[in-house]
Amino acid sequence: MIKHYCGIFGIYNHVEAARMAYFGLYALQHRGQESAGIVTWDGQKLREHRGMGLVPDVFNERHLGKELKGNIAVGHIRYSTTGASLIRNAQPFLVRFKGMEIAIAHNGNLTNTVELRDELERKGAIFQTSIDSEVFVHLIAHNMNGKSFEEAVMAACKRVQGAYSLIILANDKLIAMRDPHGMRPLALGRLAGSPVLASETCAFDLMEAEFIRPLDPGEMLVIEGNSVKSYSLLDEGNKPPTRQCIFELVYFARPDSIVFGEDVYQCRKEMGRQLAMESAPDVDFIMPFPDSGIYCAVGFAQQSGLPYEHAMIRNHYVGRTFIQPSQDMRDFGVQVKINPVKSMIKGKRICIVDDSIVRGTTIRTRVKKLRELGAAEVHFRVSCPPIKHPCFYGIDFSSKGELIAANHSIAEIERFIGLDSLHYLSIDGLLRSVSHPENYCLACFSGDYPIPCAGGGCSRACLEVTD
Amino acid sequence: MIKHYCGIFGIYNHVEAARMAYFGLYALQHRGQESAGIVTWDGQKLREHRGMGLVPDVFNERHLGKELKGNIAVGHIRYSTTGASLIRNAQPFLVRFKGMEIAIAHNGNLTNTVELRDELERKGAIFQTSIDSEVFVHLIAHNMNGKSFEEAVMAACKRVQGAYSLIILANDKLIAMRDPHGMRPLALGRLAGSPVLASETCAFDLMEAEFIRPLDPGEMLVIEGNSVKSYSLLDEGNKPPTRQCIFELVYFARPDSIVFGEDVYQCRKEMGRQLAMESAPDVDFIMPFPDSGIYCAVGFAQQSGLPYEHAMIRNHYVGRTFIQPSQDMRDFGVQVKINPVKSMIKGKRICIVDDSIVRGTTIRTRVKKLRELGAAEVHFRVSCPPIKHPCFYGIDFSSKGELIAANHSIAEIERFIGLDSLHYLSIDGLLRSVSHPENYCLACFSGDYPIPCAGGGCSRACLEVTD
Amino acid sequence: MIKHYCGIFGIYNHVEAARMAYFGLYALQHRGQESAGIVTWDGQKLREHRGMGLVPDVFNERHLGKELKGNIAVGHIRYSTTGASLIRNAQPFLVRFKGMEIAIAHNGNLTNTVELRDELERKGAIFQTSIDSEVFVHLIAHNMNGKSFEEAVMAACKRVQGAYSLIILANDKLIAMRDPHGMRPLALGRLAGSPVLASETCAFDLMEAEFIRPLDPGEMLVIEGNSVKSYSLLDEGNKPPTRQCIFELVYFARPDSIVFGEDVYQCRKEMGRQLAMESAPDVDFIMPFPDSGIYCAVGFAQQSGLPYEHAMIRNHYVGRTFIQPSQDMRDFGVQVKINPVKSMIKGKRICIVDDSIVRGTTIRTRVKKLRELGAAEVHFRVSCPPIKHPCFYGIDFSSKGELIAANHSIAEIERFIGLDSLHYLSIDGLLRSVSHPENYCLACFSGDYPIPCAGGGCSRACLEVTD
Amino acid sequence: MIKHYCGIFGIYNHVEAARMAYFGLYALQHRGQESAGIVTWDGQKLREHRGMGLVPDVFNERHLGKELKGNIAVGHIRYSTTGASLIRNAQPFLVRFKGMEIAIAHNGNLTNTVELRDELERKGAIFQTSIDSEVFVHLIAHNMNGKSFEEAVMAACKRVQGAYSLIILANDKLIAMRDPHGMRPLALGRLAGSPVLASETCAFDLMEAEFIRPLDPGEMLVIEGNSVKSYSLLDEGNKPPTRQCIFELVYFARPDSIVFGEDVYQCRKEMGRQLAMESAPDVDFIMPFPDSGIYCAVGFAQQSGLPYEHAMIRNHYVGRTFIQPSQDMRDFGVQVKINPVKSMIKGKRICIVDDSIVRGTTIRTRVKKLRELGAAEVHFRVSCPPIKHPCFYGIDFSSKGELIAANHSIAEIERFIGLDSLHYLSIDGLLRSVSHPENYCLACFSGDYPIPCAGGGCSRACLEVTD
Repeated sequence: MIKHYCGIFGIYNHVEAARMAYFGLYALQHRGQESAGIVTWDGQKLREHRGMGLVPDVFNERHLGKELKGNIAVGHIRYSTTGASLIRNAQPFLVRFKGMEIAIAHNGNLTNTVELRDELERKGAIFQTSIDSEVFVHLIAHNMNGKSFEEAVMAACKRVQGAYSLIILANDKLIAMRDPHGMRPLALGRLAGSPVLASETCAFDLMEAEFIRPLDPGEMLVIEGNSVKSYSLLDEGNKPPTRQCIFELVYFARPDSIVFGEDVYQCRKEMGRQLAMESAPDVDFIMPFPDSGIYCAVGFAQQSGLPYEHAMIRNHYVGRTFIQPSQDMRDFGVQVKINPVKSMIKGKRICIVDDSIVRGTTIRTRVKKLRELGAAEVHFRVSCPPIKHPCFYGIDFSSKGELIAANHSIAEIERFIGLDSLHYLSIDGLLRSVSHPENYCLACFSGDYPIPCAGGGCSRACLEVTD
Repeated sequence: MIKHYCGIFGIYNHVEAARMAYFGLYALQHRGQESAGIVTWDGQKLREHRGMGLVPDVFNERHLGKELKGNIAVGHIRYSTTGASLIRNAQPFLVRFKGMEIAIAHNGNLTNTVELRDELERKGAIFQTSIDSEVFVHLIAHNMNGKSFEEAVMAACKRVQGAYSLIILANDKLIAMRDPHGMRPLALGRLAGSPVLASETCAFDLMEAEFIRPLDPGEMLVIEGNSVKSYSLLDEGNKPPTRQCIFELVYFARPDSIVFGEDVYQCRKEMGRQLAMESAPDVDFIMPFPDSGIYCAVGFAQQSGLPYEHAMIRNHYVGRTFIQPSQDMRDFGVQVKINPVKSMIKGKRICIVDDSIVRGTTIRTRVKKLRELGAAEVHFRVSCPPIKHPCFYGIDFSSKGELIAANHSIAEIERFIGLDSLHYLSIDGLLRSVSHPENYCLACFSGDYPIPCAGGGCSRACLEVTD
Repeated sequence: MIKHYCGIFGIYNHVEAARMAYFGLYALQHRGQESAGIVTWDGQKLREHRGMGLVPDVFNERHLGKELKGNIAVGHIRYSTTGASLIRNAQPFLVRFKGMEIAIAHNGNLTNTVELRDELERKGAIFQTSIDSEVFVHLIAHNMNGKSFEEAVMAACKRVQGAYSLIILANDKLIAMRDPHGMRPLALGRLAGSPVLASETCAFDLMEAEFIRPLDPGEMLVIEGNSVKSYSLLDEGNKPPTRQCIFELVYFARPDSIVFGEDVYQCRKEMGRQLAMESAPDVDFIMPFPDSGIYCAVGFAQQSGLPYEHAMIRNHYVGRTFIQPSQDMRDFGVQVKINPVKSMIKGKRICIVDDSIVRGTTIRTRVKKLRELGAAEVHFRVSCPPIKHPCFYGIDFSSKGELIAANHSIAEIERFIGLDSLHYLSIDGLLRSVSHPENYCLACFSGDYPIPCAGGGCSRACLEVTD
Repeated sequence: MIKHYCGIFGIYNHVEAARMAYFGLYALQHRGQESAGIVTWDGQKLREHRGMGLVPDVFNERHLGKELKGNIAVGHIRYSTTGASLIRNAQPFLVRFKGMEIAIAHNGNLTNTVELRDELERKGAIFQTSIDSEVFVHLIAHNMNGKSFEEAVMAACKRVQGAYSLIILANDKLIAMRDPHGMRPLALGRLAGSPVLASETCAFDLMEAEFIRPLDPGEMLVIEGNSVKSYSLLDEGNKPPTRQCIFELVYFARPDSIVFGEDVYQCRKEMGRQLAMESAPDVDFIMPFPDSGIYCAVGFAQQSGLPYEHAMIRNHYVGRTFIQPSQDMRDFGVQVKINPVKSMIKGKRICIVDDSIVRGTTIRTRVKKLRELGAAEVHFRVSCPPIKHPCFYGIDFSSKGELIAANHSIAEIERFIGLDSLHYLSIDGLLRSVSHPENYCLACFSGDYPIPCAGGGCSRACLEVTD
């Protein structure tokens, strides 16, 4: 499975800053379900509340109404990992140095943290967590001799490599930035005069804030007093290429968001159309795996003229803690989430349209179930190319060993899942679905990494994924 | 809003009876979110656990693994009402009399409880709850002089009027029945030799039980030892007409269930087709309010040839406790659930297809939002006729005063919601969507009540709704 | 172990009736830790909240401030039993019949419930719980034909046998009564004009209410409007003897209470004095097992002239859920509660003064520990006679088989515990410690039961205890 | 009120290290109720669990049985402060640097943290918490160039000033130490061959471990493999005087503990004896405020020959969250904890013996109550001298402004509380109650601080208290 990763939110100069951050994180919940946190500046010091779990479970009225005072807030939600989920790793990350209190919310993954951490430890730095933000903060601190906080932040940015969209609250100043390649999204909006920042625009919609524009790659915004100033981290003469994560459009972002200036719903429908142009099978109908596959399936149906059916029913109460069967009830975990409509399956030639295949095991179970219910044919169309390479920039795919397309041909995958036919959208078809095809990172499909991993000192993220 | 009502489940002779009941209730969760309960027979006495909230919140591993011992279980989930939700009203309802322990799970609503309660109180009966099941139990007890338990149950059934599907656990005996009109559903299945009972067949799918057949109206099953015996409550020469609740097919049941022998998914698609035949507008596309409107919208799109779009995005995390805005954020409650895709709305002629209109206020808010986003035209098609009359048989519609179609013409509703056009499916169109049109109760559309309310002594349910 | 049993509280015409009930139950917490409940009359109907656990865990501010509206309240706390502790058995017990809503809080144990239950079931009564109060309510209902509620209550009292102090809230009327023998306590007080009722006067102290007087045996108070009327259940010419439970004074009641008109602290000190007069050993000092033994030990020390030491230290945090050792840590459960001061034990001749011995096993463990720490001699003095007989009137002693004094001579107990000497207070000594020795039940010491158990149809309470 | 402060526990080479730490912290619960934490070394990395609340509320069976694997453990409990209680400040404090994982548990208070923190920040250090342990860890890290971990710890100790008893777990090594003045206690024990460490010996008693000896002032123990090695932080020729906190013996420690080699129970009894010798009034009896005053009261009674009474009754359930009265119930918070036995007060001449007076307000309320109940005379005897000066070494007295004896004469305090007479134990009397009077810090009584606060750069602890 693809694990979601992180979402960030910030708001400046709003009488209910913490409450707006709560709503913003709530709208971004699909980007992370492990932990949530909000930090506010109350005029004198930072106030924080973080916890494990979903946004509505982490915060209560007391937090929003009383404890998280102040009119500047930054919020973070974090992805779910297997194994030790630690509250100490929850963000925003908070430190105090040289009379300042700083909270940092980070979406992305740095690629040279191991080297930086070693270097900083040699200089006496002590680390309390395993998150990238702590490295970032140490770099800022080490660059503050005689410099302003903003200058130190920019100097720190020169040292780090990888993907980062950041919102930093430093006393009463709110700073936002995207890395030079613009790998992770970040958008600026306005809520009745108050600047707001969010990973996706769906956070603006919920509070009826206006979307202004995405931040540029390498742009740093400093929000203070009545001003929003823009700076660039980039050398004018030596700008790196923009490399936005196309997987945001394929899978991560909510379909009602605008991300990297692209309308996600329209992109997904177009991926479905392109896919239908490349390979529409002769079947009775097409259907998505709800909900993620719905949007490309809609486009696929419109382009191909094949009927759209919604014959897999999602259980709305899944997601809550659920007691498992005590003995073997085969594939129970998969079945509890989606149940097919039997009468639609028996004797039918079906084409499933979905947005991605990572490991293939869940899809295999579902296809097997369709066969047991009497499907005559089961075809599969995927609205992105085969994922063959791990991501070092913030998407927690399973390790390379588990990426089915990394080690198997399409024919082998077809056989493994038990399909009559399988087609992946081509890279060209994918690029035709977006407005600025030259601005995207395609590394997980092509292996062409925009930021190479350092030779001998490859970062932990890299090591972990390629194991 | 329509409030969901109740779901019931029973299983006989299974080593993990309580766990299966848990899974069954979980699959039926859409029928009630207020409370859940399971009672088992441990060979010597009944064991129970009931609580307020969703199934996964009410039960934990200790309940299923240790406390709810035994291989016979009956479960119940209950709808959510406004006002006092009392744990003492949670079911299954448990009593002890004449050496027996009895648990009763009831779906439906009796129409002569006030008269029966008065009569029983005059004879000295004492009531501890306000639920129908307590009346039923008193009737059984009053009929047990010299009769067997089953005979007493049948005698009690002769006295009660209204809608009931019941599962009764009496020591080691499991009894199931549907009222003579068959108003509420109940199905029989088999799980590796063990008889199972459930309001809908989706409960069977989750545990991979086989669906055998719906119980007949007026049928009583007695499951004991190795036998499943069938009895009829009906006089052969004087059978009442079957009057199954058609609203189960329109709205309540899960689309992957078979209810009253009807395939719900196919019925809903056919309602959409009939609706398109009656009135397909000239628009750019049609779209559902997800998820309930999806299935009729799919049928509508196929019949009309209009494109199906999925341009309202549902927030998957809604449903959990959520902190409200402290000050006026207009229509926040409505918007947090579904957000439109802006680029699909602006300048477009849209037709919404949905399954019902009860009060009309939520729909009005949503349509207003579409107008604000620049929709050129907004049409609405409803896959059932106008709901003009309260239900006395177990559906907790808002009171008649709040049923918009009870007091307003279609033109008035169109104006109230702000639509370019509005069309409801005709009663004929609705009946054409099901296999046995003669077997349904249509009272909420027609006012033609199969069980009349007694003149001077109309039951409380009736009084409450018509106030 | 002796299990505590029940406490009851009532208040009439107070603006914060529920909150006062909360404080009252809190002060009575020593009488029951299993469940707590409060019912109020809000002017139109009863409102209730009951739950498992300690008073502060069962109620929150919302219960007291919003839900339990009204200015009349009745509360109940219940003892802890092993095995199934059911929320449905929590009190006050609530029923509705003939247009009335009735809540009943009961302290005591009826001795003819089995017969009454059988009789009522034959007349068609149905029971939902296993508590005595339900029998009582059925009797009231069966006696209401043409009678007032108060008359029906009195008629019901004629039918029941055993021990009961009751507070009944019937719509806006508050009724309190003690059984004809006066076995269980109940006191009347006044809080700024509002009548209050409580098992013990310590409940009055907490809210600074004034103690007026104990109810008489067989007295019924009816509090309504501005009047408190007193009635007697007794035939003037045929009054049964008063038989108050002397064990309240020995063990149950809080030392700062007045119970049956007796000052508990003074009684216990006097028991210690009498004990010292009967048998003061030649030791270095005496010490109590805290806290229950403190008060008789203080009297013993004053009478004997022996030094009082407090050399067993109680852990204040015991009582909370506590994780047990996973492997054998011998007698851990006993040691975690009280730890001896080593320097006080080694080489010393010690006399322990405590209020009772039930099973003897805990005391044995503690004495063994003192021996291991080097005590030269360990003597034991008990401030009541040997408990040889079960109680049928509301004290849940262990069954007769577990009452060590029922089956063993004092010499055998001395040997079992490992004592140098053991002396129990004589019945005469005990009676010399109270003001009205003729008014007490001594059945647990003497076997002389004031209310005999019916021959063939002995009640369940009796059967259970004598098994 | 005096706030309790901290307790620490460590165990090496035990199969159930985490469980033993749980029991140890449980026994030390009186030293801190705000938070609790345990860290174990699982052979490869540290595992931690910390939380707010009491020990039984913070840990469950899963923590002890599964998550906190390993056979070395260190635990910490923390005192309760008003205001922001932050989980991030809970201990043990955990960091990673230079390939090591380090957990540190600290009892005490450093006096030069502000200076050290400034110095470290100038060198680039970043702080995430406001606890002393973080400063300590930075110092260790800055001293590790070319030195062993133990050497770095010792070098760090040379830099810090103030009071500290520390247990450090560094990978698989357990290090324990007391500051050169020995201000805070720490004891070594043995549990079936495993070394154990605890603030007080009552932690050993619970698990039946053997008490070996207290650590010496300035001693560092390094436990590794099969060895326990002892080092000294002190220059042989320039040893600072031992200055143990006498308030541990007066108030903090449990009476069944041995602390600084002193038997706490005997010390307290002797304080009571000395007090009686200094000033025994002519009264009817003496009584303690339970439980803290019991031990000196016992000694006072024995010396003076006055009767000991236990006439104030403690509510055992206090301490749990408790709902307050909504309107003014005068002094409710005080009364709910202890209730006097009325019959013992009226017309009596009473002398209260207690261990300390900090602010005097609670005592005043209690004495007022005794007057209202008719006490003829109320005298007060305190088993320590007047507390006139704040503590900079780890006891969180109220600020100087709130120490009643800092600003008022004894006559004034007598009047404020409303006493017939008041006497404090003299410093000489206090010193006569302990075995090694020359080894104690008396600063809170005398103002004679063994570690002076630096002139211009006085530490925060100091500033806060003297405000």
